[in-house]
Amino acid sequence: MSAQLHIPGVNDLSNDKTTSFPLNQWYIAALSSEVDQQPLGRTLLNHPVVMFRDSSGDIYAIEDRCCHRSLPLSSGTVEAKGIRCGYHGMLYNGSGQCIEIPGQAMVPAKARVGAYTVQEKDGFIWMWFGSKGNHAPLVDAPSYPIHGDSRYVWGGDVFHYEAPYQLIHDNLLDLSHVGYVHQKTIGGTPSIHMNADMKTTGDDVSVQVVRYMRDSLPPPTYTSAYPFGGKIDRWAEIDFQPTHIKIWTGGVDAGSADLTDPSRGGFHMRGFHGITPETETTSHYIWSIATNPVSDPQGTLASVVAQTKYTFEEDKVVIEDQYQNMLRFKDKPMISIHVDAGANRARRIMEKLRTFDR
Amino acid sequence: MSAQLHIPGVNDLSNDKTTSFPLNQWYIAALSSEVDQQPLGRTLLNHPVVMFRDSSGDIYAIEDRCCHRSLPLSSGTVEAKGIRCGYHGMLYNGSGQCIEIPGQAMVPAKARVGAYTVQEKDGFIWMWFGSKGNHAPLVDAPSYPIHGDSRYVWGGDVFHYEAPYQLIHDNLLDLSHVGYVHQKTIGGTPSIHMNADMKTTGDDVSVQVVRYMRDSLPPPTYTSAYPFGGKIDRWAEIDFQPTHIKIWTGGVDAGSADLTDPSRGGFHMRGFHGITPETETTSHYIWSIATNPVSDPQGTLASVVAQTKYTFEEDKVVIEDQYQNMLRFKDKPMISIHVDAGANRARRIMEKLRTFDR
Amino acid sequence: MSAQLHIPGVNDLSNDKTTSFPLNQWYIAALSSEVDQQPLGRTLLNHPVVMFRDSSGDIYAIEDRCCHRSLPLSSGTVEAKGIRCGYHGMLYNGSGQCIEIPGQAMVPAKARVGAYTVQEKDGFIWMWFGSKGNHAPLVDAPSYPIHGDSRYVWGGDVFHYEAPYQLIHDNLLDLSHVGYVHQKTIGGTPSIHMNADMKTTGDDVSVQVVRYMRDSLPPPTYTSAYPFGGKIDRWAEIDFQPTHIKIWTGGVDAGSADLTDPSRGGFHMRGFHGITPETETTSHYIWSIATNPVSDPQGTLASVVAQTKYTFEEDKVVIEDQYQNMLRFKDKPMISIHVDAGANRARRIMEKLRTFDR
Repeated sequence: MSAQLHIPGVNDLSNDKTTSFPLNQWYIAALSSEVDQQPLGRTLLNHPVVMFRDSSGDIYAIEDRCCHRSLPLSSGTVEAKGIRCGYHGMLYNGSGQCIEIPGQAMVPAKARVGAYTVQEKDGFIWMWFGSKGNHAPLVDAPSYPIHGDSRYVWGGDVFHYEAPYQLIHDNLLDLSHVGYVHQKTIGGTPSIHMNADMKTTGDDVSVQVVRYMRDSLPPPTYTSAYPFGGKIDRWAEIDFQPTHIKIWTGGVDAGSADLTDPSRGGFHMRGFHGITPETETTSHYIWSIATNPVSDPQGTLASVVAQTKYTFEEDKVVIEDQYQNMLRFKDKPMISIHVDAGANRARRIMEKLRTFDR
Repeated sequence: MSAQLHIPGVNDLSNDKTTSFPLNQWYIAALSSEVDQQPLGRTLLNHPVVMFRDSSGDIYAIEDRCCHRSLPLSSGTVEAKGIRCGYHGMLYNGSGQCIEIPGQAMVPAKARVGAYTVQEKDGFIWMWFGSKGNHAPLVDAPSYPIHGDSRYVWGGDVFHYEAPYQLIHDNLLDLSHVGYVHQKTIGGTPSIHMNADMKTTGDDVSVQVVRYMRDSLPPPTYTSAYPFGGKIDRWAEIDFQPTHIKIWTGGVDAGSADLTDPSRGGFHMRGFHGITPETETTSHYIWSIATNPVSDPQGTLASVVAQTKYTFEEDKVVIEDQYQNMLRFKDKPMISIHVDAGANRARRIMEKLRTFDR
Repeated sequence: MSAQLHIPGVNDLSNDKTTSFPLNQWYIAALSSEVDQQPLGRTLLNHPVVMFRDSSGDIYAIEDRCCHRSLPLSSGTVEAKGIRCGYHGMLYNGSGQCIEIPGQAMVPAKARVGAYTVQEKDGFIWMWFGSKGNHAPLVDAPSYPIHGDSRYVWGGDVFHYEAPYQLIHDNLLDLSHVGYVHQKTIGGTPSIHMNADMKTTGDDVSVQVVRYMRDSLPPPTYTSAYPFGGKIDRWAEIDFQPTHIKIWTGGVDAGSADLTDPSRGGFHMRGFHGITPETETTSHYIWSIATNPVSDPQGTLASVVAQTKYTFEEDKVVIEDQYQNMLRFKDKPMISIHVDAGANRARRIMEKLRTFDR
């Protein structure tokens, strides 16, 4: 029933025949809004990367070092043609080629750093770290049309985790924890969450978990955003992909709608969760939350984003504590319970992709 | 004359045939007052433990992890029947057995964590970490009747040390340092401390050091608690056991009493010092101080506890600096001087117990 | 063209046949003003040292540990005859010999710690860490007469770097970075710095770099200290020795003087830069700056010292960022450009001295 997690410091990986992360995937590197006039430095899958825009707003990502003295380019300045190092002024274009060494007539061809495949879509910057044998992405980065849907408003943020990315997968694929961890926002009655109707499906590269909780007390985030009459019927639809998870949750007045119908009304929260390894033991969590305001779109959005942030900060405490405790108890097995079906399925997908990508 | 200390990072322990700590001993785990409605998590002899009480106040100690996702149980909540994990609500009793998995009918027998032998006595919680071959304690945890003696009032606290437990033993068995380190509280004339009458005795599992200092100026802690007429005669009786040290110090007006008579009057400080390894290189120092108030018991107690705390904070600075310097100078020998007789005897006892417990 | 840097964590040093640092050299240990009534503890070339003065002001340097319990002597107190440990009062003279154990009649000969060869000159304390086969310095510590020259006023400070000493050498031998890094103080036009007339000379144990920049805008530090009429001609004369670098910079009104004449007027900054390894990966930067005030010597000095400190704090950010990035990109080569001639020459000298000193 259980699926093993391979995590450095917890299990012995010395005989591991796999890569640390699936490589032939599009990963979320940043929110579009994080990169404007200033460059953004961020380590992704152990690659220190600097992202910047040229004068037409196009996005580029290259190694975050100057090939001269190894200074991070992310502490340099962005110009029309590229990014200039802050130590001796060497200028690099978006392909990683140095195109100017102040005071020196010739720029040697070897004066260059690596470049990454990058795409910007629907408010996210995606990056590809394909393995050597299969570098080029065969498909475009995924789109997320909700960000352009006029029925919704959305906001987002980036969290840094001192924990491996797999533990964030576990957390999001098993929403039964919501009643225990998130009483102040999206919680509600713990026992109803632990006893939800739950169905898990999937294929080689995705997992779907659908949960219904009927006749439930609406939690604070719901009542502050929507005029519910009393008890509600809640749904949670989780769609796991190897680099990101979409979660559509919401509620309607109890008995007022068919929960399985995507056109159901009520209060909606549509989360996008980009989970990108920084290293084997640390992670970036790049997320957005969209909601369908009844009135006062900006007020509703501000409230939903603030409460989502509070909720994710609660998850961060739990997950980082969990990881520290896994390190303390590294030889002890972990058992699975009924709520882990989706998380275990996702773990098996990730293990297979790590082996395949080698 | 000297006795070697074996400390990781200072001496090479790669050929060490002993355990890190004597195991078949009762260790102080906490002050009773530290565990009430909330659970208490603490690592003791490398074991992460959570302590909690049931509805009748009885104390339990089990492994500080949930067997499901490895969260620390110490961040959960205490209920009448046990402790509930804060992630998915699994409930554990005092034997470490999971007795409820919300939403799941059956609780598998393997859903359990380890439990520890624990006893509560006279305001302390004691714990036993006996080695596998000889797990069961043959004797009860020690009692400390001073805490129930109506002539005394007492208080206590817990310090965390970034230093191995043996250095705290050294410090407490050699009170000649008092004049140099504790001028603002219990110090007095340094030379009188370094020249005290000192007698060291003991057996296979204990060391006694008795020190008399006559015609000494009373130090600040003494004069603020007791109306001395002028110079005083001081005594210090130190009783070392492998897991704790009792120290009875005090003073009478010079020449007014037989210092060797336990019924001597004057000002008394009776310290109990539980020194419990957290790891090989860090320690818990769990202490109480009792005094015999002439008047205003609560005022006297508050003053004596505050000055003791100040004194122990001075020791902590010295001992942590000492350990850092031992690490910097790891190949350099340390020599013994006349005041080290008790400390060296205690080191030899600890070495023997570590070998025996293997 | 490039010269390899050997830095732990960046290159593999496992087959390194050299010492970590040139040993048969006089290193700057402190500013004289750092050692007065209090002892000064500092780790130099991996040696933890305590410096103190006797009653006549003479300076001594011995191992920073008591041979009894290994406490740092630098947390003790200085007396007329030596330094007394703060734990049990053992007193050491400037040769490292213990000369008093309070309460003990005999002081064993082995109660001693190591002593270092030390000299005080012109406001600096110099120390010698000669290798075993060639311990005694054959020459005196260098003098720095500028500190006693009535035309100049001077001040100084000590910075701690989380970076290897070689990166500070690189920075000071290549002043072309001034225009990019120090716009708020000594910068000016970046392109003029990158295109300066530059000449590099030297021998087996020194490097000289001379740079002239004509018709340059005077930067803030210059205009706040000297009444320039408009554009200026600037010079920079850098003299590298293995343990310290002297840099004489300054400017005159454009066209008003022969820049190559040492008696040129205008505004002068004469820097002394003692670069002393703390460990292989951390450094002390002990510096002074002298200037020739036109009027208001103390006001001019305060301004020049404050702006120099600000300038060096900018360098510290760059160099520490550089080192962290070298660790992140440890397998990536660094290329040299036209401005690196002096720095590369100095690297080769240091490599040879490290091999020779073995």
